[in-house]
Amino acid sequence: MAVIRTVLGDIAPSEFGVCDFHDHLIRSNGPEVALNSWYLMDSIPAACVELDDFIAAGGKAMVCMDPIGSGRDVPKMMEIANLYKGKIHLVMVTGFHKGSLYDNRGHWTVLCPREKVVEMVVKDVTEGMDIYSYAGPIVERCSAKAGVIKAGTGLREITPFEQNILAIAARAQAECGAAISTHTDFGTMGVETIKILKENGAKVEKVVLCHTNKVNDRYYYKKMLDLGANLCFEGPDRPEWAPDIEVAENIQWLIEKGYGKQILLSMDAGRSTFQKGYMAAKGIVAHGISYMLTDFVPLMKEIGITQTAVDDILIHNPARVLAM
Amino acid sequence: MAVIRTVLGDIAPSEFGVCDFHDHLIRSNGPEVALNSWYLMDSIPAACVELDDFIAAGGKAMVCMDPIGSGRDVPKMMEIANLYKGKIHLVMVTGFHKGSLYDNRGHWTVLCPREKVVEMVVKDVTEGMDIYSYAGPIVERCSAKAGVIKAGTGLREITPFEQNILAIAARAQAECGAAISTHTDFGTMGVETIKILKENGAKVEKVVLCHTNKVNDRYYYKKMLDLGANLCFEGPDRPEWAPDIEVAENIQWLIEKGYGKQILLSMDAGRSTFQKGYMAAKGIVAHGISYMLTDFVPLMKEIGITQTAVDDILIHNPARVLAM
Amino acid sequence: MAVIRTVLGDIAPSEFGVCDFHDHLIRSNGPEVALNSWYLMDSIPAACVELDDFIAAGGKAMVCMDPIGSGRDVPKMMEIANLYKGKIHLVMVTGFHKGSLYDNRGHWTVLCPREKVVEMVVKDVTEGMDIYSYAGPIVERCSAKAGVIKAGTGLREITPFEQNILAIAARAQAECGAAISTHTDFGTMGVETIKILKENGAKVEKVVLCHTNKVNDRYYYKKMLDLGANLCFEGPDRPEWAPDIEVAENIQWLIEKGYGKQILLSMDAGRSTFQKGYMAAKGIVAHGISYMLTDFVPLMKEIGITQTAVDDILIHNPARVLAM
Amino acid sequence: MAVIRTVLGDIAPSEFGVCDFHDHLIRSNGPEVALNSWYLMDSIPAACVELDDFIAAGGKAMVCMDPIGSGRDVPKMMEIANLYKGKIHLVMVTGFHKGSLYDNRGHWTVLCPREKVVEMVVKDVTEGMDIYSYAGPIVERCSAKAGVIKAGTGLREITPFEQNILAIAARAQAECGAAISTHTDFGTMGVETIKILKENGAKVEKVVLCHTNKVNDRYYYKKMLDLGANLCFEGPDRPEWAPDIEVAENIQWLIEKGYGKQILLSMDAGRSTFQKGYMAAKGIVAHGISYMLTDFVPLMKEIGITQTAVDDILIHNPARVLAM
Amino acid sequence: MAVIRTVLGDIAPSEFGVCDFHDHLIRSNGPEVALNSWYLMDSIPAACVELDDFIAAGGKAMVCMDPIGSGRDVPKMMEIANLYKGKIHLVMVTGFHKGSLYDNRGHWTVLCPREKVVEMVVKDVTEGMDIYSYAGPIVERCSAKAGVIKAGTGLREITPFEQNILAIAARAQAECGAAISTHTDFGTMGVETIKILKENGAKVEKVVLCHTNKVNDRYYYKKMLDLGANLCFEGPDRPEWAPDIEVAENIQWLIEKGYGKQILLSMDAGRSTFQKGYMAAKGIVAHGISYMLTDFVPLMKEIGITQTAVDDILIHNPARVLAM
Amino acid sequence: MAVIRTVLGDIAPSEFGVCDFHDHLIRSNGPEVALNSWYLMDSIPAACVELDDFIAAGGKAMVCMDPIGSGRDVPKMMEIANLYKGKIHLVMVTGFHKGSLYDNRGHWTVLCPREKVVEMVVKDVTEGMDIYSYAGPIVERCSAKAGVIKAGTGLREITPFEQNILAIAARAQAECGAAISTHTDFGTMGVETIKILKENGAKVEKVVLCHTNKVNDRYYYKKMLDLGANLCFEGPDRPEWAPDIEVAENIQWLIEKGYGKQILLSMDAGRSTFQKGYMAAKGIVAHGISYMLTDFVPLMKEIGITQTAVDDILIHNPARVLAM
Repeated sequence: MAVIRTVLGDIAPSEFGVCDFHDHLIRSNGPEVALNSWYLMDSIPAACVELDDFIAAGGKAMVCMDPIGSGRDVPKMMEIANLYKGKIHLVMVTGFHKGSLYDNRGHWTVLCPREKVVEMVVKDVTEGMDIYSYAGPIVERCSAKAGVIKAGTGLREITPFEQNILAIAARAQAECGAAISTHTDFGTMGVETIKILKENGAKVEKVVLCHTNKVNDRYYYKKMLDLGANLCFEGPDRPEWAPDIEVAENIQWLIEKGYGKQILLSMDAGRSTFQKGYMAAKGIVAHGISYMLTDFVPLMKEIGITQTAVDDILIHNPARVLAM
Repeated sequence: MAVIRTVLGDIAPSEFGVCDFHDHLIRSNGPEVALNSWYLMDSIPAACVELDDFIAAGGKAMVCMDPIGSGRDVPKMMEIANLYKGKIHLVMVTGFHKGSLYDNRGHWTVLCPREKVVEMVVKDVTEGMDIYSYAGPIVERCSAKAGVIKAGTGLREITPFEQNILAIAARAQAECGAAISTHTDFGTMGVETIKILKENGAKVEKVVLCHTNKVNDRYYYKKMLDLGANLCFEGPDRPEWAPDIEVAENIQWLIEKGYGKQILLSMDAGRSTFQKGYMAAKGIVAHGISYMLTDFVPLMKEIGITQTAVDDILIHNPARVLAM
Repeated sequence: MAVIRTVLGDIAPSEFGVCDFHDHLIRSNGPEVALNSWYLMDSIPAACVELDDFIAAGGKAMVCMDPIGSGRDVPKMMEIANLYKGKIHLVMVTGFHKGSLYDNRGHWTVLCPREKVVEMVVKDVTEGMDIYSYAGPIVERCSAKAGVIKAGTGLREITPFEQNILAIAARAQAECGAAISTHTDFGTMGVETIKILKENGAKVEKVVLCHTNKVNDRYYYKKMLDLGANLCFEGPDRPEWAPDIEVAENIQWLIEKGYGKQILLSMDAGRSTFQKGYMAAKGIVAHGISYMLTDFVPLMKEIGITQTAVDDILIHNPARVLAM
Repeated sequence: MAVIRTVLGDIAPSEFGVCDFHDHLIRSNGPEVALNSWYLMDSIPAACVELDDFIAAGGKAMVCMDPIGSGRDVPKMMEIANLYKGKIHLVMVTGFHKGSLYDNRGHWTVLCPREKVVEMVVKDVTEGMDIYSYAGPIVERCSAKAGVIKAGTGLREITPFEQNILAIAARAQAECGAAISTHTDFGTMGVETIKILKENGAKVEKVVLCHTNKVNDRYYYKKMLDLGANLCFEGPDRPEWAPDIEVAENIQWLIEKGYGKQILLSMDAGRSTFQKGYMAAKGIVAHGISYMLTDFVPLMKEIGITQTAVDDILIHNPARVLAM
Repeated sequence: MAVIRTVLGDIAPSEFGVCDFHDHLIRSNGPEVALNSWYLMDSIPAACVELDDFIAAGGKAMVCMDPIGSGRDVPKMMEIANLYKGKIHLVMVTGFHKGSLYDNRGHWTVLCPREKVVEMVVKDVTEGMDIYSYAGPIVERCSAKAGVIKAGTGLREITPFEQNILAIAARAQAECGAAISTHTDFGTMGVETIKILKENGAKVEKVVLCHTNKVNDRYYYKKMLDLGANLCFEGPDRPEWAPDIEVAENIQWLIEKGYGKQILLSMDAGRSTFQKGYMAAKGIVAHGISYMLTDFVPLMKEIGITQTAVDDILIHNPARVLAM
Repeated sequence: MAVIRTVLGDIAPSEFGVCDFHDHLIRSNGPEVALNSWYLMDSIPAACVELDDFIAAGGKAMVCMDPIGSGRDVPKMMEIANLYKGKIHLVMVTGFHKGSLYDNRGHWTVLCPREKVVEMVVKDVTEGMDIYSYAGPIVERCSAKAGVIKAGTGLREITPFEQNILAIAARAQAECGAAISTHTDFGTMGVETIKILKENGAKVEKVVLCHTNKVNDRYYYKKMLDLGANLCFEGPDRPEWAPDIEVAENIQWLIEKGYGKQILLSMDAGRSTFQKGYMAAKGIVAHGISYMLTDFVPLMKEIGITQTAVDDILIHNPARVLAM
């Protein structure tokens, strides 16, 4: 029987609940942190502030989308998961991010034989994640397993490095059955991503494309949905991409066209400046992850999206996708 | 009886006329100038070019939104006001801008007791502005008084420095009755701004939030208007935020929803590159402040906004807000 | 009788076909290349990949918009034209780009008498282009003639340098009859450009404003079309400006308003990163020029634009404009 | 009778001792901090680490060179002075830094009448420093008085802003008798500085030029010393300027030429990265202020500089200069 | 009996010859390449051009100083070593570079237990280098062993990350006996480096400090030499640090003081722009590694350094240091 | 009989006098101006301030080193020459600068046949300079002729573009006899420059290498002087390169070694910030060109350089080199 693989173990999909499908609680290191210090999110207390708020607003589940080499911190996430045992289901990921975050000439996915890399990704899902997240030659697995395989693509391009990452994700899925979730850069190259994943054996119905809503084009969404993929809409409170109302109306349009079973939602508050926990510690008034539930979901309803459709987006669709 | 406090003295609200509620004629120094030289606007002849055009297009009043420590030049503004005596009503401001423009560790609003800072702001309104704009320990008041209190907030955040600025503005308003006009960064944090001002005793109906239109979200506008605040729409001719037609249609939608008494309009031509006066001196063809009246207001009418609604936006709403 | 002047000689307008009115195949040097290496496009094989794809998708004609001092490479373009003889009509340009790409103090258009500059531009059209593209004092004309005169303007401004460029283009048109195509920066200053060209004797119906669609404002388009000018819509696959669907719907709205005879279309894939030829050589999956025909034109039809209207935009309008 | 004015009161010059004539313990805010966060030095515990080391190495006195508007923090310095009462003599400064650290258009030294500015500087010396360091219109003096007047000049230039600062320093000295210490940028413009100070009434024998050793030119030093000024050599442990041995040998050469009574010494560890206190808190091994006494003075002796000459440089010369 | 461990196997120290103790032939990836593309040196033909020149000038041995995570390419270096079998002795390194080149929060030397990291370093020396250079969890050793352990320190600081690297190097040396060679940043912190290495059990006579000559201070060199360490002088042809003559005279002074047995020499041509191989391929005239022997060594002799002293520096000192 | 070719005509070498061999009075445009606005020097009054000072200090001649495409302004220089007729001899240059200042792919020296480029350079010397400085296809010669041919090389490299420039200079010299003066970047590649010039037929005794003193290496100077070239020492008042005393002592050492007939001197005040004329207009105290005569030459004498040697450097050597 299908299960959802959380940090604390496998659960039945029916146990799942209102889910933020793409977010970040801890990012302890990695290339993004080098780009901008606001990407550093290594405080367990700050993560707890976010989780408390999220749970208070009705949240029950969250996929933490930090892959290998991009700040994944297994020990801290396990600590948080244990602190919130029974209150929230946390799912972690294995796999890799977009190519611009790695040394495309010297990364081990490039140097080593592909089948060995696939094996490492699969073991994260089936045996337990490496507590060092494959940062070097020393490996030490723990009880927490990854529940999703991540891959990433570039802005208007998919480089050879990324084609390899996609192939690895697809082949790992073929072996272990976990869902694939991809980063699309500024939303682009979704159609091509689906094509490459499929060519490498992925099941498109178990693929989620994240950030594609940044291209504010309903017909583009339609193309990807028609291919069978799922789209995770993210980033309410990002007016530089689109005001909330535009995101909400696009979702509404897609529901009306019959795509309501393929849509997921997330906040993707992947910077310390997007999280109340970090901001409040500096005395700063700011929004946090819970905004998705306290502000955006009400807006969806205000313009007429039904509770049934909302439940699909928040509960049933993620549960279906994550089940393995 | 209520008055509007202009650079040349108090006038009756009924004497007011077509008003650009947020603009810049002179910015002689300050942190913005350090960021980019195009923020330097210290030429009286250039300001006169703008005013001549603006008056020719039907303009009668303008609020010049340069606060303390952000380029306010009282002597030059008095000179301009006197040159245009009887032709235009100029209103100046006291108070402060968003936090990123100040030394958040060493600014006197942070170092000194809040009540003493409030006192200084109030005296600008009631006794006459300091000709040195509180740049240092030497103070010299003049006959020109400020007619509005400015405050500012950050991009998706309101820092402790800014919370203090908001509190100072609210308390100064409680003492002197002047309207508060706030800078919202890229339009964000409007709802939270209203909340903080209210908690500190401000009258929301005498609060104007500027730049909020940069978040192109009618439902966001609605939230703030429902709380009783006024919104100043600005920046026609800024397609990087939204094309004119989108701004106009948003205003139209709000008028239709019944918010026509809470909307104000401005050009906010706060760079020398946005002003014909400076550009013409270099032989460059460019738009200026008058564009608001020569191009944008006609567009509003072209899509069906009535003259009555336009008069509210340009004349009656600013007069009501500014009356103290 | 009117002709269209291609690299390989004059043809009858009726021989023309589906045309990308503004694109780039070779840019061998120049200021853009100095800004970013992705502007370097000096590979004939890469250009051939693009042309093969474009022709396979139904393309028959292309205007290559590289003017004097901005990477125009006459010998390489002649080589390509000969390789594709009978398969595609290539049109090249003379004239100049926007001012920010030139030394505004030391450029020869500024130093030399205007009539002598006009003469040089005209000779490119009537006698044959200088194979050195007027880079220095040595001139060597060849058989290939320019078929369009380019000019360019700045972001929200038209500088004296650019006013001169516009005047030169207008006067050259008066002498030789070629169409004028202008670069508008981020789409701005279209109305003022038309005015200046007209004042200098240009025929507005033989003027094409490029990039104006970047200002996503139907009423702005209307203003320029009402003045008689033609607009070249470009940049499908540029969601940072507008998603394809928005461009398509804007074109549809204009057709409905009766402006269908004044609209042209282009891809403007002016970076190596926008071209399959260059990307494939690095193993990168990316879109190319053919996207305009394989993806964008179908979207236009999907939302209901008729084949007749599409034929005007792709075939008849460019032929009419280019005829001299 | 002459006294040296320390934070805790006036003392006899004979009470003074081994002195670091130009250093930094606390810099709480200001423009340098905005340039680079390493200039932020607001930790009293970190300052104590430095002082403990310095005293252990034989240090008895220090001039803390943070002027008005450049991070001077009177309350924190008073707290430190009280903590180290009887162990070290701390001298603070009034006056101003080089022009590039101020808003040259809007600073109060530019806006206000010079005599009023001089008065404010003098009062810092004679009545007690403003605890807000003249950051705004509210002034609150305390018991601690400034003992030195600072001024600053630019790199190969002395701007009008800086000429004014120099004139203010000279006139304030004429009124209160305190020494003047100037920042020379990368050591340049020393001769011109002396000239301007003299023209404005300064006593050259009470003028110290800091950083001039950055120009590694003995003949340049000689020129300034021949004019009667004092030179403070700084920055051992700055090989990017000159290795220690070169500084030491230059001092030796000057002593041999008879200028030993006009030389002072300092560490100028004006960044948190130059101080053990801040670095040790991060686990970093680094040098601190005490290096001047533990490493540089021994090197001076190793190459043959006598103890008598060293005592002049460290004890008698600073005491003479500071006496007022 | 002691051996020198080269890429192709162990040799007797007596077989060694004229040695460039710190250079770079191949750097295939890594953080330096990300900083500037000139650090990319992945061409075997280019490396051959350098080696041919170097051998022609009398060179017999070279230590290639690319450590783990900094571009070390074992397969390519083995290929080169085999191509030059019998012509030159190539020594490779294990260990790590300065901290700024690594993710100090997420690197495996920080995450994993120190003894396990030491074990990995030792195995590179004793069992064969990992062909993936420990880039990830997959390890594959080859026949080529490392002959030196590298460590690195920062500019005027040794961070906790770097203290760990030094400790690892020292403990690895204790286990396997290989020499330690350290990168000092701009030459600083040499004395502290020796201290930390010693505290962790390193033999100072088997430690070489590289780049310390960048601090042009003979007395600083003396301090380190008196502690027993060896100094590798590098970078003739780097006038921005010091002209060749200054480096040569400093070496001469040290020889005269009796330190001739502790000095080594290198070119450190660690950028493609410093190598004839890469430059000639672009038609550029430039110097290469052989300059050390063709230009710098003759200068040493021209000012009077004896052949005996030169032989120590080029042959006997490196052989002694490398022997294990 | 040999002549020196000045802007106002040919003169006998014996008429020449104290000469600044490398300086700048007018730079009206060009790539350096684009890099930093301080390179813009287009004011005739400012130039006059410099010349007045220079003449007052004993100056009689100046070579203005602005070549083709690097800001040369023939009309303004002619105007200045006429204003100072009888007071100073001004020599202008033709030829080209270092490659980084040009578009290496699109410059006409690269596109056109070399012999035609040589012809253009020669005509500047023999027929009169183009008043447009070969900026485009329109050429207009005037009475003023160039008296020197410039060439330039890069930092530690001579690119193919620069090898071509050097070859052009050498061949032009062969035809017209004018001296060649080269820019060496940060002083490097002097030896290689001489080699390339020689290979292309230049007379080394008529070649002056400028800026080589930036490499503070007497033995490097010796190498170039031994090859027969002349060195122009420049930049007193540039302590970031070397303090004046070091430059002076290097010159002294060379004179003692017998190279006194091959040394020239210049100020090279090639930025507006290095010129009193521009600085005084802003009220800034700064040095200017005359510093060379008022400060540096006295320092040369102070350390014992004889008047005879000084006369060679300032008068006889430049006259000999320039004579054609």
